[in-house]
Formats: sequence, C-alpha cells, structure tokens
Amino acid sequence: MKAARAVLEFLKGSGVKHIFGIPAGSVNAFFDTLYDMPEIEPVVTKHEGAASYMAAAYAKYTGQMSVSIGCSGPGGTNLVTGAANAMREHLPVLFLTGAVPVNTMGLNASQELDAAPVFRTVTKYSVIVKEAKDLLPEIIKASQIAISGVPGPVHIAIPIDVQHAEVGNPDIPVLQERKPMIPNPETIQAAAKALMQRKDGCILVGQGVRGAVDSLIELAEMLNWPIVTTPQAKGYIPENHPLLIGVFGFAGHEAASNLINEGAGQALLVVGSSLGETATNNYNQNLTKDRFTVQLDFDQTVFNRKYEIDIPVLGDIHLSLLMMIEDLRVLGLSRGTAHLAFEENAMEGNESLVQDVEEYNTKNVLLNIQKLLPSNTRYTVDIGEFMAYVIHHMKVLDYDSYNINVHFGAMGVGIGSAIGSKLAEPERPVVCITGDGCFFMHGMEILTAKEQGLPILFVVMNNARLGMVYHGHSLQFKRTHPSFEQESVNIAEMAAAMRIPSFRVNGMDEISSDIIASLLNADGPAILEVALRDNNNPPMGDRVKFLSSFGK
Amino acid sequence: MKAARAVLEFLKGSGVKHIFGIPAGSVNAFFDTLYDMPEIEPVVTKHEGAASYMAAAYAKYTGQMSVSIGCSGPGGTNLVTGAANAMREHLPVLFLTGAVPVNTMGLNASQELDAAPVFRTVTKYSVIVKEAKDLLPEIIKASQIAISGVPGPVHIAIPIDVQHAEVGNPDIPVLQERKPMIPNPETIQAAAKALMQRKDGCILVGQGVRGAVDSLIELAEMLNWPIVTTPQAKGYIPENHPLLIGVFGFAGHEAASNLINEGAGQALLVVGSSLGETATNNYNQNLTKDRFTVQLDFDQTVFNRKYEIDIPVLGDIHLSLLMMIEDLRVLGLSRGTAHLAFEENAMEGNESLVQDVEEYNTKNVLLNIQKLLPSNTRYTVDIGEFMAYVIHHMKVLDYDSYNINVHFGAMGVGIGSAIGSKLAEPERPVVCITGDGCFFMHGMEILTAKEQGLPILFVVMNNARLGMVYHGHSLQFKRTHPSFEQESVNIAEMAAAMRIPSFRVNGMDEISSDIIASLLNADGPAILEVALRDNNNPPMGDRVKFLSSFGK
Repeated sequence: MKAARAVLEFLKGSGVKHIFGIPAGSVNAFFDTLYDMPEIEPVVTKHEGAASYMAAAYAKYTGQMSVSIGCSGPGGTNLVTGAANAMREHLPVLFLTGAVPVNTMGLNASQELDAAPVFRTVTKYSVIVKEAKDLLPEIIKASQIAISGVPGPVHIAIPIDVQHAEVGNPDIPVLQERKPMIPNPETIQAAAKALMQRKDGCILVGQGVRGAVDSLIELAEMLNWPIVTTPQAKGYIPENHPLLIGVFGFAGHEAASNLINEGAGQALLVVGSSLGETATNNYNQNLTKDRFTVQLDFDQTVFNRKYEIDIPVLGDIHLSLLMMIEDLRVLGLSRGTAHLAFEENAMEGNESLVQDVEEYNTKNVLLNIQKLLPSNTRYTVDIGEFMAYVIHHMKVLDYDSYNINVHFGAMGVGIGSAIGSKLAEPERPVVCITGDGCFFMHGMEILTAKEQGLPILFVVMNNARLGMVYHGHSLQFKRTHPSFEQESVNIAEMAAAMRIPSFRVNGMDEISSDIIASLLNADGPAILEVALRDNNNPPMGDRVKFLSSFGK
Repeated sequence: MKAARAVLEFLKGSGVKHIFGIPAGSVNAFFDTLYDMPEIEPVVTKHEGAASYMAAAYAKYTGQMSVSIGCSGPGGTNLVTGAANAMREHLPVLFLTGAVPVNTMGLNASQELDAAPVFRTVTKYSVIVKEAKDLLPEIIKASQIAISGVPGPVHIAIPIDVQHAEVGNPDIPVLQERKPMIPNPETIQAAAKALMQRKDGCILVGQGVRGAVDSLIELAEMLNWPIVTTPQAKGYIPENHPLLIGVFGFAGHEAASNLINEGAGQALLVVGSSLGETATNNYNQNLTKDRFTVQLDFDQTVFNRKYEIDIPVLGDIHLSLLMMIEDLRVLGLSRGTAHLAFEENAMEGNESLVQDVEEYNTKNVLLNIQKLLPSNTRYTVDIGEFMAYVIHHMKVLDYDSYNINVHFGAMGVGIGSAIGSKLAEPERPVVCITGDGCFFMHGMEILTAKEQGLPILFVVMNNARLGMVYHGHSLQFKRTHPSFEQESVNIAEMAAAMRIPSFRVNGMDEISSDIIASLLNADGPAILEVALRDNNNPPMGDRVKFLSSFGK
C-alpha cells in the first residue's frame, strides 16, 4: 500500500473518524485514499485555521486524538494558530501537512516551505519525514507523544513523494492508551494531612478539573471548603452547588475576590490551574498569602512559577483527587456532614442571579437567551466583550457547559469549537456565542456546518465595532481610534443569502421562545444576530488594570 | 515619549502611511499613539492573514517597506502565512507583534506566545525586544534588513511594557535607501561576449524583471532573441511585443514549450527567475540542455540549484541589464535593427488570441470581461483553476498588469493583494479574480475595502467546489472525493446583504458593458459573481504530470 494509506489505516484503527482541513495537490494521496475509506470523513473547511479549532474541540469532547490537515506552504502556516491554541489547551491534535517532493527541496517547488521548524515551538513534536519507511513509525510516535503526559499537538510534514511511496503491507498497530500519571502516594498523604490540619481554606479550580468534577465536589464537601473557579473553568461546577462562590480572575465575581483577598482561609488547594494571568486576577499575591498551598496538576512546569507552592502534587488530576479523598477518609473526614454550613454564603454577590429585564444590553440579552435554551446546552464562547459578560453573568446549569478560551484567545475559536463540539457529541445542543469581529474572521465556517448538517445556533453579538478593543482603550486611554469601528452589516440578511435560517434582534422584546425554537430546530446551523451597541463597561476591569499598569 | 511612539515616528519619517492589521490589548500603545498621528492610517482587517497580503502588495506597488501588526499569540500566528508569502516574493514587510510583559513571560499571561522562533524561518530576521532602549534600534535594524540585499519580511515581537516604556526623546533617523547590488563589470562583459558569440538564443524572464522591463526589452531587441516569461512574470512584457512568445511553465503556451524543448537556440539568458517548479515546467532539463546559460539575479542562492549556470551574474537586475546593454553596444550591437525578423513568429500558437464566444466557460468569461475593462487594469489573481486560465489566455495590455502567486499559492492572497495594490496606486483600476473557495476564506475583506472606500471589482468565479483540487484529482486519479464539492451559495446576494453592489452572471450573454461599468463606477468595492461549473480541463496539465510522477 501507499505510505499515506498506512497512515490512514493506523488512524482509522485508532478510532479517528474525521480529518479537519483543506485538500490540495500536496496532500492528494490522503484525500484520494479517503475515497476508499468511508470510515474517515474529511471535514473540508473554509480556512485551515478554523479546521484546527474544530480539531481541538473535537479532541476535547471525544477525549481522543484528532487530526487536522493542510497543504504544503500556506495550508500548513494557516494551521499554526490552531497548533498554538491546542498547545495552550493541552489538546492532542495531530497536524499533517504536505511538503514538496524530497528531491525538489530548496528548488522553489510550488508552495515549498520547511514547516517543521515553524511548528516546533507551538507543538510537542514537529518533524518532516523524508523516507517512506519512516512515515508510519513517525506518525505512531507523534501520536503517542500527543496523548502522553501533558497532551498537546504534534506535527508531521510529509513530502508528496513519501505519501505516494509503496510501503508493502506493514503491521498497523493501534494507538496505545495514554499511561496515567500516578501521583506519589506519600505526597498525596502529606497534602491531605496538611490540608486537614488547617481550620479553613478554599479551593481554586481550573480547567484541569475537566473529567474529575464529581471527585472535586466530593473532596470539597469533605473539607467543606468554598470553591472558586478560573474563568476558563466556568461551567464545570454546577451553579447551584452550595460551596461554589463564583469565578475568580478575568470578569469574575466580587464574592470570589473577597474570599481570596480577605477570606481568613488558612489553606488553598489549587486543582488544574496553571495560575496564569486571567486565573489569578493578574497574579494577585493575596491568592497564596498566609495560605498553605497545595497544587494538583499533571504539568510539572506549572508549580512554583509565580506562587510558592508548599506541596505540589504531580499526577493526573482525577487520580490525585481520588487518592486524596481516600486519605481524607482514612483520616476521618466524611462527605456531606458539614456542607450546609456554607449555604448562607452560596453565590452571595454573584450578579448572575440578578436580572434587569428592562434594558437592552449584553447581559440581559445573554440571560434571556439562556432562559429559552435547553439546560444542557453547551456554549462555545468566542473572543470579544461578550465573553466577559458570559463569564460574569451566565448560569452554569449543566456539566461541562462552557467552552471559553481566555488563554490563547484566538478570534473565531468559538465558531470552530462549536462545530468540533457538535461532531463530537451530536446529541448535545451547541450554541456559539460570537461577535461581528469573529464572524468576519471565521464566520464562513457556518457553511461548513451546513455542509455537515450540524444544527448549531450561532448567536452573533453585532455591535459593528471591535468591542473589547473599544472598551479597553476607552477605559485605559479615555479615547478610541476611529478604526475600531466596523462596517455595520446585517448579518441575518447575509445568512439568508446563504440559505441559513436567521433572525435579527433589535430589542429585548424580540427575543422570543418561538424564534429560538425555530432556529434551534433547523436541520442545520442558524444565526441569531443581536444588533446591539452596548456602551456599558463590560465586567473586565482587571484586564484593563493589568494593561494600564505598564508605562505608569 | 513612549517607545511605541518612537517606533511610529521612525516609520512616519520613513514614509509609512498605512499599518495593516488588527488592534488588541497587547498592541494598544501603537493604536493609541496613532490617534495623535493622522499621517499613518491603520487598515483594520477582518483576519490578520489578509492584512499580511495587503501589506505585501502594498510594499510591492509602492516600492517601499510596509508594516503589518498583530497581537501577541493568535494575531501573530495569523500573520505567519503572510510572512512566508512575503519571504517567497522578496517583499519587505515589517511585522510587529505584541507580546506579554517581560516579567510575566512563562506565566501564562493572556495570549502569551514566544513568536520570534515561529517567524524565524519565514522571515529574514525575527527577534523579541525585551528592553525599551533597544526597541527603536532593533526596528531600524530590522527595517534595513528588510529592504537590503534580497528584500524580505522581518519580525519584531514587542512586550506590552516595552511599548509603553518612556524612552525620552531619541534621535529618530529615517530608513536609509537600499544600497544597490552592483554586479561585477567583468562578469557582465564576459556574459555579454559569450551571448553575442552564440548564433541564437532565448530569454526566460521571471518576476525579478519587475522595474526593469524597458531595459529587458531593449536587450532582447539588441540580441533579437525571443522572450518567454514564467507564469509569475505574466504581465511584464506587453502582449504585442514581436519577440514575446508566451508563458513557459505552469499553464503556459505550446509555442513557449516548443521553443524551449525543440528550439535551436544556443544560449539561454535567465533574468530574475529562481527556476522553480512552475517556471520550468517541473525542472524540464531541456531548458539549459546544449545551451550556454547566463543568469541574472540579485539572489545568490538561485544559481546552480537545479541547472548548471555558465555565467551567474549577481547584482540588481536592472543594473545588470543596463551594464550588459552598454557592453553589447560597445561590442557593436544596436537596438531594433533586426527584431522585425521575428514578427512572423510572434505569439504563434498563443491561444489567448483565439476566442470561442459561444461556450459559457472560464476562458471565454475571462476574455469577455477583460474586453470590457480598461486596458490599464491590474488583475490580482487568486488561487484556483481560474488562475491557469488567466495565465494561459488573458492578454497583457499594459505594464505590470498581473499579480499572480503561483509560488506560495495562498488562497485568498488575490483579495488582500487587490486592496494593497489599490491603496498603493489609487488611480489604477484593480480587478481581483478569485473563486468561491478563496472568497469563503478571505472574502470578508471586501468589507475592509468598503471601509476604506476602495473601488475594486471582485470577480468571483463560483463553481461551488474546490475546482483546482477537483480537476487535479480527476486528471490524476480519475475520481474525486465528494468533500471537494462546496455548498452552493449566491455570493451576489451575500454582497447585496453587505450593501455592496453586485451582479450574478449565469451565461455569456449576461456579461455586458453596462454591468461592468456600473460595478466599476461604484464608490467602493463591487462583486461580479460568475456562476459557472466548468468541466473542461484547465490548462494546468504540467502540474498534474508533476504530481502524478510520484508513486509510479
């Protein structure tokens, strides 16, 4: 068989069902082989960047490695943002790019580019394979790297001639499951003891808790400690849990800030957060001040970066939580005895429970739309001023219900993520919350959703400006450059031209259950455009404070 | 002043009038400073990738360094394709990206990414500047590198705190003009003598001839040798010049192939071509076989790559041509004595002169549209099957009239190039020839053109499939994957929703001078959509032969 076929057979055997990208001459062996392999469906996108976001979300919500493909040259470089995004999000994506034939390297063949070094710093592994016999082994090696340890993207560049070369009938193994990272039991025991010895404390939950939420809640209830989450971890702890205080960090809640800044807690347990800028309110030193700090993570590099950690626990977070629960049980703690004590504080000051139904503003629009959507809806949230409102105001009604990317913050990532999420979990309602800026960057992927027959609701907050930039400059400099204003476009009308169901909202009273239901029940994607220029300051003051602190 | 201001003062003083990109927190010092500096207008685009194409075309058509900007993280990585494109096209573009504050590096600040190594292999120079005192000197150094020797892109990553830091009132120099690369007079003399000694020969002209066309023609007329151009150099030699045979290479002309493959010429003069795949019909060995070969180029690395060059002449091409003309004159040749002898051969076999006005196909549509457009129209040509038709069939009616990118071949580059070209030369009519695939990748930049008030006609060849991929697979594999088909969208209707004048063509008789005139005379961009699925094989057989040669 051709080397390209061997690669696809390995991927097929390892459970890969979609490949996200754009075909071209330099990857034609792959796309031609797919003709004979209906088990793998290519999702051909409008821009490779969006393909890379889809692949990342698909990996996240299937729990498997996903695959993204682009041609030599521009197709490959168009995937770089997505590689960097997957790296930051610890998502295992195998990026395949075409390359010019080995004997034409350096001779300006069409779309020639040495992509391996370009990808090197934004992936865990990036190589070009110049001999056909090495291709399958390199793909297997890269795939194992992608899912091992701290998962992340990998990249293999494959020259055209290598793809087409005959490799006979090689043994095709399947991808070995990721080996769990088992934490040191003595470290866990020491941490459990140390935490128990403290009178009180709190728990900061990052997105590393994904897949271990039940255990986290069990542990929190045993300790009877309040929980705050990072913005990125919004959606993991149910809104109605009595120990949940709210979001700490970017666009977070005052109650959470108060707890961290003034709370008397003697200990802090950090679970699955790298303690980056947005998770810590700009590296707020109060977080660990006078607190005995335990941090659970599978990424060794996050310990003792900015904060001194008393006991770092390296290992898969779920395992660490399970072992710690067991140790606490042995030490005499049990679940549920005390957690009601916190009920009076629960969500105090969390403005998400307060609604102003009068004013046509971002907050009220988002809350009203949420009221009309199924409670198990997953929201994939794009980058813009609306993101701060989502984090601050929207409710957490079901598990794993938000996909928020305040880390790498690539505009349009919410659009690709919606498609990846829907393909991964077709039964779950998916709503993308995006803006006009993101829509004009990657919104044409709504056609990809249409081609795939994916019923996704795209809520486009259309303020005809780069709102986050506008508000950021407004707050920091008291003036804004006219270039932040954008052409005012009727996006619902554009959707109609694309034969995509749509509705344009111009006021609070236009958001009705009929409209939402009809858009949700379309047999493909739909657009709810919200025409609204919100001049309130979005709840993102901390980011502005951070930016303003330079040059003073 | 702030360090960011010093940078902008340097750019302003050096003639920079536009900065192409997207604002964000991590580059806010630049955008806020621009508020006080109306001499530099930011062109805020929908995707940074398109900004990078605009900047490249703007550099090309102004003959000056241009500037493109993006935020830390995704804004930066979104510029990588454009950097690689500018590198391949030898265009001096200064890429500026934001970076997280120096003291937060490695701490997961928002959008953190170490962009310098990502850009390193796709630029001439890529660094991060961590001290404010170094910023202006590094910008100056990078700018000089960009325009020196073989021009190309450079990249500087600038942390937020560095941008905002006070640097006092530094001396702000202006960018020094590029030092000409003066060829060795003895080499030129030897080359001139050697060429004169040959009974006959031919001239292969690449895009390096740009800016030296008159001298090239003078030289050709002195030697009385026929000229073939590379695909990328289409548009430099006027169609009606008696010595012009046509295009050799991708989508080229039979007469040019015959000349190279069977012509008796004893010599070959290569001017400004790297002799890459598309310029040489896949490294056709007949090009230099039994021919004494002289190659003029300013890029030392292009000599003796695939072809043995008897006399490589390193230097600015215009200078080399001027000096060679002088040497030939001294040796007794004069211009115009003999060139009529070739008249009988001129453009023989060049199918671009043959028209079939009956069939509604890509070729006839393009020729008919061209007939209705001003003769000085510049065509910026995107990537798709239509590109092969443009190269093969469209006429060269004026100087420098095509912008074709068969080298790096980034989809959507034609759209950005149209905008960069129009900003650089507002008086020249610009028509972008693009396809539905490219339109869905970067077509939202038509809103950028609208915001800038740029009257550009976008001709969108809409076949509702990835045509080049479709035909490539058809020809090579005799089958095509269903995923190459795209959602059929009425793009003219989308344009109408964007309040952009548009017309959808469904047959030959619908292309009228009235329609073209009304679209051309709009006060901003307009779209002529050509709904057409052309099942003829495009004239790109050589690319398919190249791809098919692997794995046989």
